[in-house]
Amino acid sequence: MSKTLQELAILLDGHVSGDPAVTISGLGTLDSAVAGEITFLANPRYAAKVATTTASAIVVTATAETFGKNVIVVENPYLAFARLLTLFTSRPRVVKGIMPGAFVGEDVAIGADPSIYNNTSIADGVRIGDRVTLHPNVTLYQGVVLGDDVTLHSGVSIREGCRIGNRVTIHNGTVIGSDGFGYAPNGKSWFKIPQIGNVVIEDDVEIGANATVDRAALETTRIGQGSKIDNLVQIAHNCQVGDNCIIVAQVGIAGSVTLGNHVSIGGQAAIVDHAVIGDNAMISGQSGVFNDVAAGAVVSGTPAMQHKTRLKCAAVYPHLPEMRKTLIKLSRSMSKFENNLEPAANVGL
Amino acid sequence: MSKTLQELAILLDGHVSGDPAVTISGLGTLDSAVAGEITFLANPRYAAKVATTTASAIVVTATAETFGKNVIVVENPYLAFARLLTLFTSRPRVVKGIMPGAFVGEDVAIGADPSIYNNTSIADGVRIGDRVTLHPNVTLYQGVVLGDDVTLHSGVSIREGCRIGNRVTIHNGTVIGSDGFGYAPNGKSWFKIPQIGNVVIEDDVEIGANATVDRAALETTRIGQGSKIDNLVQIAHNCQVGDNCIIVAQVGIAGSVTLGNHVSIGGQAAIVDHAVIGDNAMISGQSGVFNDVAAGAVVSGTPAMQHKTRLKCAAVYPHLPEMRKTLIKLSRSMSKFENNLEPAANVGL
Amino acid sequence: MSKTLQELAILLDGHVSGDPAVTISGLGTLDSAVAGEITFLANPRYAAKVATTTASAIVVTATAETFGKNVIVVENPYLAFARLLTLFTSRPRVVKGIMPGAFVGEDVAIGADPSIYNNTSIADGVRIGDRVTLHPNVTLYQGVVLGDDVTLHSGVSIREGCRIGNRVTIHNGTVIGSDGFGYAPNGKSWFKIPQIGNVVIEDDVEIGANATVDRAALETTRIGQGSKIDNLVQIAHNCQVGDNCIIVAQVGIAGSVTLGNHVSIGGQAAIVDHAVIGDNAMISGQSGVFNDVAAGAVVSGTPAMQHKTRLKCAAVYPHLPEMRKTLIKLSRSMSKFENNLEPAANVGL
Repeated sequence: MSKTLQELAILLDGHVSGDPAVTISGLGTLDSAVAGEITFLANPRYAAKVATTTASAIVVTATAETFGKNVIVVENPYLAFARLLTLFTSRPRVVKGIMPGAFVGEDVAIGADPSIYNNTSIADGVRIGDRVTLHPNVTLYQGVVLGDDVTLHSGVSIREGCRIGNRVTIHNGTVIGSDGFGYAPNGKSWFKIPQIGNVVIEDDVEIGANATVDRAALETTRIGQGSKIDNLVQIAHNCQVGDNCIIVAQVGIAGSVTLGNHVSIGGQAAIVDHAVIGDNAMISGQSGVFNDVAAGAVVSGTPAMQHKTRLKCAAVYPHLPEMRKTLIKLSRSMSKFENNLEPAANVGL
Repeated sequence: MSKTLQELAILLDGHVSGDPAVTISGLGTLDSAVAGEITFLANPRYAAKVATTTASAIVVTATAETFGKNVIVVENPYLAFARLLTLFTSRPRVVKGIMPGAFVGEDVAIGADPSIYNNTSIADGVRIGDRVTLHPNVTLYQGVVLGDDVTLHSGVSIREGCRIGNRVTIHNGTVIGSDGFGYAPNGKSWFKIPQIGNVVIEDDVEIGANATVDRAALETTRIGQGSKIDNLVQIAHNCQVGDNCIIVAQVGIAGSVTLGNHVSIGGQAAIVDHAVIGDNAMISGQSGVFNDVAAGAVVSGTPAMQHKTRLKCAAVYPHLPEMRKTLIKLSRSMSKFENNLEPAANVGL
Repeated sequence: MSKTLQELAILLDGHVSGDPAVTISGLGTLDSAVAGEITFLANPRYAAKVATTTASAIVVTATAETFGKNVIVVENPYLAFARLLTLFTSRPRVVKGIMPGAFVGEDVAIGADPSIYNNTSIADGVRIGDRVTLHPNVTLYQGVVLGDDVTLHSGVSIREGCRIGNRVTIHNGTVIGSDGFGYAPNGKSWFKIPQIGNVVIEDDVEIGANATVDRAALETTRIGQGSKIDNLVQIAHNCQVGDNCIIVAQVGIAGSVTLGNHVSIGGQAAIVDHAVIGDNAMISGQSGVFNDVAAGAVVSGTPAMQHKTRLKCAAVYPHLPEMRKTLIKLSRSMSKFENNLEPAANVGL
């Protein structure tokens, strides 16, 4: 496929500076792109490379120095690059139908153009939308509902009664709807609390590999529309994740946590059960959140605190040994003074 | 199904206050339960809702205000609720037999009433008890032994020679008996130490999704009777986990750790290899345990220390920047004093 | 199988002290080994057990007290033990061929002596070397390449276009080549950046269970020759892991990190994206590495710092409450002095 610079500019909501008729048939980085390809400048650190790149065109912001090159000016070159990459690399979906070796139970409805691979297991009563791709060893338990344009990679399990929206992609080995971790103390042992709720994954969610989202005890664990969840993340029962959240690898979210919209959580962070995290809050990697977090707050550390405060504290931390020594020395000096200056009082005691 | 309040009270080891003939056919929360249903009050924070709930009866403790409602008085309403939930929601197990597409090797013994789904793989020499459920894509390697009433969810792998007790449930994708992580340094590279032991999971254990329990190098990694393990937990080779332990999601337990009975470990905590953790010890979430922990101790932090001490330290931590400033100021003041008050000595140096 | 002590000494690059004709047919620990077996002493703590063991021979270092026993003297008894364990316990590989119920796509090349179990899925265009073992429910996506002597345990998924070297073992449920976690902000929502690179696993790598290695955005995520990766580890897109690294369970490595050769990373540690870790660096368990780490450095803590410094700081940390009290007391004393000694100045204000 090839496009003129003008055609690409329209697709990217940008405008051309230079020759709009230049033909582009691929893309690369500032270092790797060659004639006929387009590249982009998002990080000003690499601005000097614009002068030397062999690419035929560059996606830049309005303020960038263009060195007389052919450019498309856009607001967000990184986003534009993502769009170009999608344009030049996406391939038509292959419709495999229902392959031999796929197991389909009773009372199952499957929409148009499925790709259901061998060794897939679809239990009774499952409902599947159009253009769904189920890779090998996917297991759908009884009563699962999948929307349109869903892709489940090999080894994904969707447990009984869980519902997956449209345009959802789930990577290999991820488990949706395993039992929440709930037990009542029964003397020395533990009595299992039945987990009879489900999980609802809304539209446009993507979940990485080997992650786990537990079913609610009674009602629904919900992942909001457009949220993106990385590998090996744990989301416990009853959680309510808002829209367009970003949850990086190995995060652990305990039971009944509420995340607002557009919350970002760095890798390996943990959130205590029942916490409420406000819209647009940012939680740094490895943080331990033991309390609610206000909308828009940026927190880090264990226990998590305002990120700026913690940075200051962390900067002092390496001085602790010298601080302790100074403190001991000062205490001795002070005692000496107090003894010298207040002899009467001391004698009086 | 429906029961009289009197019948339920007997099941719960409690007694009725109010009308014992009231008929109950379901249950809900204080907010959601309607006529014909029973609810419970475990957290005193919600005591006022007893007056306004539309439930036909409430499970309470002896000290609760009942507002003249029909109640069952028990010692532990939370446990009673779990029992009622089990009573009203559990369904009879479906016996599927051995479904087409299940692979069964040679010299395999399978007990009464199995449900072995399509795409299950059972290697040679496996022994399976009565009423076992193996969901799709379960793999049992050679020589595995499963007790009675075991449920393995889709994608579970039990490696060669591992033994699973009675009434054990393992959720999707969990791996029992992968090789322990053992290598001997061999100059620059690493020489693998064969891991020829196994894993034994005792009766009444439940393990969550995508967890891993490694086989012992020479002997047995053991999970004690009644212990409950959450999603994405790692238990390394040679560990000895006691009875009725609670291990929350994403905990990592290094090699040859011994846990006593009834140990609780919060999410994402880690325990260093060879540590010994005493009975009833509690380890907070995200702790890093680098030493043994005494029976009954409550520890937190990295490195883990007595929880109460750490709370006090954590409360001081945000004051570090101001403490450092004060310390510098005090040092200067002290120097000034010492210069003023001890001029001879200073001159002498 | 049995060997004389002399034969074993040659295999271990050691020499016999005592009777070289003694016959050995197995091995055990200092406590468990019996007549006819060999044991070893690696940890000097157990030196006294050499006198009392019932083993027929012991592997020791040159400096060990041998109590007149038959011994093999070597440089590294632990490594020698690993070699003996391999010698006495390894069994010949069983060649299963391609079992019924394995799915093999078009244009697939499979080398000599495969063991490809039931329920394995091999997509079109896959290339497989000699003596490869694929356990049940392994999924190889389109265009995957496996070298010789590869073992993939049940539930492993290798995504499209990824390449696995020779003598690689991957344990159950691990995912190689899932999409990297890359999204461009698009106002409130997130635009997926296509992940069109792959993963290359070099020779002699071993990866544990339920780990995840993401494919690169554009190029290759690489795991260097001889590196060993434990269970539940996350390696993000574009990472370059050097040779012979050791990465313990639940470690998280963010995108585009470079590890040198022979880097060791303790369990649950995390490394921030784009960090560069030098050769032979050691990162302690649970560390949070937010910056580059120099070759040979030993770091720990969050944020990670020199391990020795952090140990000193951690030793002071429990004193924080008492330090704060002392500081407040000193400040008060100092104020009193300043008021007494500088009355004119204070009045002047």
